[in-house]
Amino acid sequence: MTGAEARESIRSGRHRGPTAALALRYVQANLVAVPEPEASHFRLLCARNPVPCPLLEEIPRGCVESSWARGSDIRIDVPGYRLWRAGAPVERFDDAREIWREDLVTFLIGCSYTFEWALAETGLPSRHASLGLNVPMYRTNVPLAPAGPLRGHMVVSMRPYPEEVVERVRAVTRPYVEAHGEPFAWGDPGRLGIRDLARPDEGDAVPVAPGEIPVFWGCGVTPQVVAVESGLEYVITHEPGRMFVTDRRHEDLRPAELH
Amino acid sequence: MTGAEARESIRSGRHRGPTAALALRYVQANLVAVPEPEASHFRLLCARNPVPCPLLEEIPRGCVESSWARGSDIRIDVPGYRLWRAGAPVERFDDAREIWREDLVTFLIGCSYTFEWALAETGLPSRHASLGLNVPMYRTNVPLAPAGPLRGHMVVSMRPYPEEVVERVRAVTRPYVEAHGEPFAWGDPGRLGIRDLARPDEGDAVPVAPGEIPVFWGCGVTPQVVAVESGLEYVITHEPGRMFVTDRRHEDLRPAELH
Repeated sequence: MTGAEARESIRSGRHRGPTAALALRYVQANLVAVPEPEASHFRLLCARNPVPCPLLEEIPRGCVESSWARGSDIRIDVPGYRLWRAGAPVERFDDAREIWREDLVTFLIGCSYTFEWALAETGLPSRHASLGLNVPMYRTNVPLAPAGPLRGHMVVSMRPYPEEVVERVRAVTRPYVEAHGEPFAWGDPGRLGIRDLARPDEGDAVPVAPGEIPVFWGCGVTPQVVAVESGLEYVITHEPGRMFVTDRRHEDLRPAELH
Repeated sequence: MTGAEARESIRSGRHRGPTAALALRYVQANLVAVPEPEASHFRLLCARNPVPCPLLEEIPRGCVESSWARGSDIRIDVPGYRLWRAGAPVERFDDAREIWREDLVTFLIGCSYTFEWALAETGLPSRHASLGLNVPMYRTNVPLAPAGPLRGHMVVSMRPYPEEVVERVRAVTRPYVEAHGEPFAWGDPGRLGIRDLARPDEGDAVPVAPGEIPVFWGCGVTPQVVAVESGLEYVITHEPGRMFVTDRRHEDLRPAELH
């Protein structure tokens, strides 16, 4: 399946739920849309925190097509949106046209599906993928570098691996700098302020077997914590695990000098 | 005084000590030289941690002239070098030619003197500058995003300001993204794991007056902590506060879209 076919499947309603198993060779992206006055701050937040927030594309106000996905409409090509409003509980939508605003600027951020593809190709598949689950995600105590009114803490995703393959896992994921790159941390979850691996803040819990250690990567759900901690007025994001599928291939996110 | 005049004054031995008061309008830089096998890791460390380590220039192996400073020799144009060796206490040198190696790759990293100039121009001079002291620097508990064998914790510099001007201080320093940009944190030092402001890890202690709060910025001394925590075999750095003076002006570090 190509990226275009995956988007068509989502747009037509044939595909609902996480996009992990769709268009396996194509880059998927986290989506964050903020009103124009906050766009320059958000751009700076990404520049200052490139590990959780590697910026792929900024789609200008008034535009709903990504240059990474021909014929796309970012308001209907994601199988699940969240609306964050200051002080209000998050609301969920299948179609973002009813909540879209003319003044929204949209940011696409690299996603772990890219390095998960690389890991699987190397014979190191992620546990949650083997189990058909969504990756577990945790809010940490690691502060982001703030940018104007934007602040928050890093969210990480976790995949367990036997301790002896961690250096290989690091090496395989390192080149994908636009998709969080190599792990941020591994081993003791307490060092990141994570109390209970069995209770992720997003996604599904996965078992860590004896001899394995949890390995943590920066996660593109981080801007959703920023929306809450900064009390932003109006932010639309994707539903974690339900991404925007592009037309580019994972290899495109691997810079030549890291080949 | 121009950048070239400052370098000549240092090279001839007329100037010793911190460079804060030299060539006030010119960009100064932190210096880190590592053996070539570690260079790609160090480049990646900067890319993943741009707030403490904003990379200005990478000077290739075998070259000792910075493209930011015509006629410069990075081995003799800094008034004080440190040599870090795995397991050995740091050694200090005035002239780095005796410890230079053919395989060293040198990185220049943005320095807070740039935004201090902008703050002084706005009527918000730094306390340590007014007192003729070196800025206080602290090792924090904020983990860096690792890069291959390189890991460590962020170092921050601190300047006290009255709480009511902190938003102005943030706004003035924000555009200088290649010189650490806006503060990383302000207020309670304990949130960064700093126990005692009166005992900085580098530089001089400065008083925080009643009504003032400490404001913390990412600091280019961070790679020196990386050298220690990673147990690197051979690293040459500048002595904190004694920087490499370039020919570029501070305005050059302010991208057009942030003017």
